[in-house]
Amino acid sequence: MHIMGIMLAAYCISAYICAGIMEKFNITILGCGSATPGPKHFTSSQVVNVRDKLFMVDCGEGTQIQLRRSHVAFARINHIFISHLHGDHCFGLLGMISSFALLGRTAPLFVHAPWEMWNILSAELEFYCSDIDFKVEFRGFDATKAEVIFIDHSLTVTTIPLKHRVPCAGFLFKEEKTPDHLDRQSADFYDVPSCEYDRIRNGGDFIQPDGTVIPHERLTRPAPLPRSYAYCCDTALNPEMIPQIMGVNALYHDCTYSVEEARNAAKHFHSTSADAASIAKKAEVGKLILGHFSARYNDENVLLNEAREIFPNTVLAKENLEIEID
Amino acid sequence: MHIMGIMLAAYCISAYICAGIMEKFNITILGCGSATPGPKHFTSSQVVNVRDKLFMVDCGEGTQIQLRRSHVAFARINHIFISHLHGDHCFGLLGMISSFALLGRTAPLFVHAPWEMWNILSAELEFYCSDIDFKVEFRGFDATKAEVIFIDHSLTVTTIPLKHRVPCAGFLFKEEKTPDHLDRQSADFYDVPSCEYDRIRNGGDFIQPDGTVIPHERLTRPAPLPRSYAYCCDTALNPEMIPQIMGVNALYHDCTYSVEEARNAAKHFHSTSADAASIAKKAEVGKLILGHFSARYNDENVLLNEAREIFPNTVLAKENLEIEID
Repeated sequence: MHIMGIMLAAYCISAYICAGIMEKFNITILGCGSATPGPKHFTSSQVVNVRDKLFMVDCGEGTQIQLRRSHVAFARINHIFISHLHGDHCFGLLGMISSFALLGRTAPLFVHAPWEMWNILSAELEFYCSDIDFKVEFRGFDATKAEVIFIDHSLTVTTIPLKHRVPCAGFLFKEEKTPDHLDRQSADFYDVPSCEYDRIRNGGDFIQPDGTVIPHERLTRPAPLPRSYAYCCDTALNPEMIPQIMGVNALYHDCTYSVEEARNAAKHFHSTSADAASIAKKAEVGKLILGHFSARYNDENVLLNEAREIFPNTVLAKENLEIEID
Repeated sequence: MHIMGIMLAAYCISAYICAGIMEKFNITILGCGSATPGPKHFTSSQVVNVRDKLFMVDCGEGTQIQLRRSHVAFARINHIFISHLHGDHCFGLLGMISSFALLGRTAPLFVHAPWEMWNILSAELEFYCSDIDFKVEFRGFDATKAEVIFIDHSLTVTTIPLKHRVPCAGFLFKEEKTPDHLDRQSADFYDVPSCEYDRIRNGGDFIQPDGTVIPHERLTRPAPLPRSYAYCCDTALNPEMIPQIMGVNALYHDCTYSVEEARNAAKHFHSTSADAASIAKKAEVGKLILGHFSARYNDENVLLNEAREIFPNTVLAKENLEIEID
């Protein structure tokens, strides 16, 4: 009992340390205004950092200016996801590509966007960027259906069909579950040979030579739960996306208008604060981030307060704000 | 003599008032950095205000953001002049056009640019701006030779062939000479009938019924001298442009590098501070404005000091700075 007590204490401490060194998953807002950029907000763009891999989401005019202000390293961005083909979400792309070239980039850049973009983008690249030293690899998708558009050992990115004037996708960033952490003290105590480690990390028990089963849970500390983030901008109220974003840690949602502008919101296929909050509530998300603000709001707290009445854990996006996904 | 003394005093006062109400001619710098925008500078753009008509010169990424910050009215811009087809001089154009549309523009917008731009711009407009409620009237020019590209009763704009990696034009804004101001007191004193006013303003004398000639100078106050402004960015040292810009009130000149980077300047077809100042000196301009700064200079006073050694009346461009042309 004494030894088991010590082991339990060690487990708790390890779990605590483990939580402390949880790998990065955050977003940096570069622009969260709607349509025309102004003195207060830049147009849509943000960087999602998952375990130090950087993904850009949307690329409105001025994105590269904001990127420098946020001290995000250009060279670490290899994928840019474009939600739809309105200028406030993609007019910064050519500038980004030109600046990558000036900064000496050689690694390919992957641009994920609705298929419709390819013809015009390829013409623009040929005209303005014919002498760049890296490849722009275009990965088109059909914004009207959910598609896995990126996958590696730690992350999956899936499109979320939204409800806008033109085909428009949201993006769901979902960490892959990682193997549990082996508790080395416990493994040594039970004389587990190292060739068994991987199997045990991935859920297996250990069977001692005398047939005694040492359960997985006694030999490991659970890995952190996989985290997820959904970017849903621009969209009208769209309950159809709820099953796909159910339980995400954070949701960035279109909040162009206040409740009293509901008619305008519907007309332009955008959302009100209440629309965003009701989706967050029904999808049981951890945190709601409001963005894509109309320039008419000098003080966006009106939007925040309306949303918080429905979904309390709501924050306002803001340029250069970094938000942890946890 | 007494009457003539009073008239002389009145003339002096009128001339002073006249100088005081001299019509507007100024520039507002929107961006004066080179190539990649950064935290300090936006890429090239400025607005030239000639008697309350606004002309945009170049339109790098972020121009519309800067325009809002400078409180310049979008609706009063009817002409945009693009010097050449590098992204840092034109990647803001589509965003400007889209924002004009969102702001309800109906008046045509004239885009003056090298002919080579038309194919790509028309494809971009068709893709991104097919539903706008105003016409984009493209006015192509051959950047390799001087051409009058705009003329009205008060102003002429002429291209200035520059020396860059691609065809690139400067722009010379030259006020038309206005008629002299009629001195009403003097005209009344000599019983000049109103039907003679225009002829006298434009240089004619007045002949009284008895044959006495009242000279033009006694009946008028001289109009202010026509002012002129030359925008010459981007260019290597280019003495060939001197005859065209001789005596302008102000010259905006490429000053990407300091003197010690002369080799880089020549390689990239840009100018050093000394290049800019030597052109200003030889062309006997009134004021030199340095711009298009490389991002390597944290403190551009090094460029300013170098230039002032050759041409003392030199200033640094800066975002949102308004400079009078006088």
